[in-house]
Amino acid sequence: MPLIATPQSQHFADALPLQSGAALRDYSLSFETYGTLNAERSNAVLICHALNASHHVAGVYEGQANSEGWWDNMIGPGKPVDTDRFFVIGVNNLGSCFGSTGPMHANPDAPAGSGRVYGADFPVVTVEDWVNAQARLLDALNIQTLAAVMGGSLGGMQALSWTLQYPNRVRHAVVVASAPNLTAENIAFNEVARRAIVTDPDFHGGHFYEHGTVPKRGLRIARMIGHITYLSDDVMNEKFGRQLRKAVLGSADGYKYSTQDVEFQIESYLRYQGDKFAEYFDANTYLLITRALDYFDPARAFGGDLSQALKRATCKFLLVSFTTDWRFSPKRSREMVKALLDNQRDVSYAEIDAPHGHDAFLLDDPRYMGVVRSYFDSMAHGAAPTVGSAVRAAFSKSDEVTSVGATL
Amino acid sequence: MPLIATPQSQHFADALPLQSGAALRDYSLSFETYGTLNAERSNAVLICHALNASHHVAGVYEGQANSEGWWDNMIGPGKPVDTDRFFVIGVNNLGSCFGSTGPMHANPDAPAGSGRVYGADFPVVTVEDWVNAQARLLDALNIQTLAAVMGGSLGGMQALSWTLQYPNRVRHAVVVASAPNLTAENIAFNEVARRAIVTDPDFHGGHFYEHGTVPKRGLRIARMIGHITYLSDDVMNEKFGRQLRKAVLGSADGYKYSTQDVEFQIESYLRYQGDKFAEYFDANTYLLITRALDYFDPARAFGGDLSQALKRATCKFLLVSFTTDWRFSPKRSREMVKALLDNQRDVSYAEIDAPHGHDAFLLDDPRYMGVVRSYFDSMAHGAAPTVGSAVRAAFSKSDEVTSVGATL
Repeated sequence: MPLIATPQSQHFADALPLQSGAALRDYSLSFETYGTLNAERSNAVLICHALNASHHVAGVYEGQANSEGWWDNMIGPGKPVDTDRFFVIGVNNLGSCFGSTGPMHANPDAPAGSGRVYGADFPVVTVEDWVNAQARLLDALNIQTLAAVMGGSLGGMQALSWTLQYPNRVRHAVVVASAPNLTAENIAFNEVARRAIVTDPDFHGGHFYEHGTVPKRGLRIARMIGHITYLSDDVMNEKFGRQLRKAVLGSADGYKYSTQDVEFQIESYLRYQGDKFAEYFDANTYLLITRALDYFDPARAFGGDLSQALKRATCKFLLVSFTTDWRFSPKRSREMVKALLDNQRDVSYAEIDAPHGHDAFLLDDPRYMGVVRSYFDSMAHGAAPTVGSAVRAAFSKSDEVTSVGATL
Repeated sequence: MPLIATPQSQHFADALPLQSGAALRDYSLSFETYGTLNAERSNAVLICHALNASHHVAGVYEGQANSEGWWDNMIGPGKPVDTDRFFVIGVNNLGSCFGSTGPMHANPDAPAGSGRVYGADFPVVTVEDWVNAQARLLDALNIQTLAAVMGGSLGGMQALSWTLQYPNRVRHAVVVASAPNLTAENIAFNEVARRAIVTDPDFHGGHFYEHGTVPKRGLRIARMIGHITYLSDDVMNEKFGRQLRKAVLGSADGYKYSTQDVEFQIESYLRYQGDKFAEYFDANTYLLITRALDYFDPARAFGGDLSQALKRATCKFLLVSFTTDWRFSPKRSREMVKALLDNQRDVSYAEIDAPHGHDAFLLDDPRYMGVVRSYFDSMAHGAAPTVGSAVRAAFSKSDEVTSVGATL
């Protein structure tokens, strides 16, 4: 029997002060919950999403086949994050285009009756702002303390930020395929994607809704760039290599000799991904979310000293990285592990030798799933989480991480 | 006294048959020469250029300060490729926008008197076509055999192709920061850049000249993507890191909180590079050159067996790669080294531990310069080229390449 998901919405009348100095008033958050909150209200797990995902984390919608949540392989009855034990909450972030208040919603500061949407006037939101909004949702749900906060990629940044902004409200943080900030190269890829969107003539300075246009050209380019950075060179070669989409018959090399037609399979794949994305994603949301990524940098206020920055975190941690992830490489996870150990925090770390690049965090690698399952199992049994043999088995090489903490 | 360069042009009346089956008639090649051809006509070195370069390889133009050729640090009197000994030829490839016949030139098949330029009708040209055109230029210069053919990146592909198409006309090939073909990821980056250009409304299907437009938005995006792949993550972090272009005074974190303004130095750098490129580079040339990169694959006709493909090469080789080059990584150079050794060819190989990524092939690393100098010195003295100690010193780590060939 599949898990049935039911989207909900929570309205907030009090303005949310933002890191930028602006404020967001009269906003809503879309969310879903799976499983049952126990009597002690102590088994809640908050899932934070990355760039193009939403509050629909697990299960399917009634009567809608193929509507699985984006982390349905990880979360559900009997799954690594077991909804028979945990009360799991998926929440959509502010600025998104999937339900929570965002650029496509009416701007309360617009002239009355104009019905004008925010568009480019939606305020810049940060990871910290998202976490504050999520904390208000927990208040509304009457949940004081999370058993765990968990996320991958940008979601992992939110999980980390939870441990710094609300150290007393989190017992465990699971930070997967993430980083303590973006590198110059990460920012560079975001910037090219943003320029492609902003310079699309259909963008109209972010107020394209009023013009009845959508900057699809820019969104396509942004998504194609994104996809390249989600995959590893290895997996791209394995999946696509230099295969032609359709070799020309009777030609010695099969080439069409065209600069504009699709020639290679990889081109076809990227164009398809770009086209699909441009149909459903909002351009202003893309700008907002990539900027939230750029800005996140908890060590910034400590002169770049991550160990100082993470001193505030008191919960236990599981970090996971993937060897072929070049977007958020294992090196970045190790920086976080080191900074936590510098503060004598309880950290488990698994570096999974998976070929799939950054995308691996959404895939079904059994070692990865096993590590997360062990961690949550120990948590459910009230034991000090120790993922022991599962983590050790997951290590592919003997490098500095093997010496990390007692729980390894 | 600086080397003074003088651009020349050679017209070809005979049509050039192209790999695609098309032909190019009535074309010219721009070229420059430096140094003096000896009486035996045996000291010629051909330099092949990469994506955005030209025949202006070395020296300066009379009366024009800051007009140094693109490989002026490598080529000139007393330089690693010493023009006091060698007669060096720089040639601009067909399809370029820097002098040789290309998309901006009159299309001889257009109605007489229309003055219509090729634009998108310029035929697709390949590395093999370029090499054939270069061979005709050598015929015109009455040079039968090259002392060496040399190039970096796409230029290295041409150098390799010379050894396969004209094995009897090359004594040495110097292949720097190159690859025997593009990976799926390489093709993917090219494809995103092409889509940015082709979907720019100012592109007009490649006939933008007639519309008085230039697809600058697309060219900017293409160049920004290119720049990211030319640099290493390390050098980007070192040069730009997370530095802001201009921190906001009186703000705790210095952020402006804007999705569209420049916030980080890396953004400013990339925008500047994109703007500059869009002012001088031709969009159709960009498509043609990236396609030539995509198509190059000498092993293709041998079922992917590079050793079989390189059997035809009989000359001596120097290959150089750079440890942080992720566009054309050392692994790709080692594939070529291995394939040449499988055929008992004489190969020297240096893997330079440089932080600059792919760009390193244009920079002044003393170990790199030393390796090339030694190789050309030995060549000039008629000795079997052995770069011996220079190459050994250049190796940064003990991996499989240290076992490469007698000349190491």
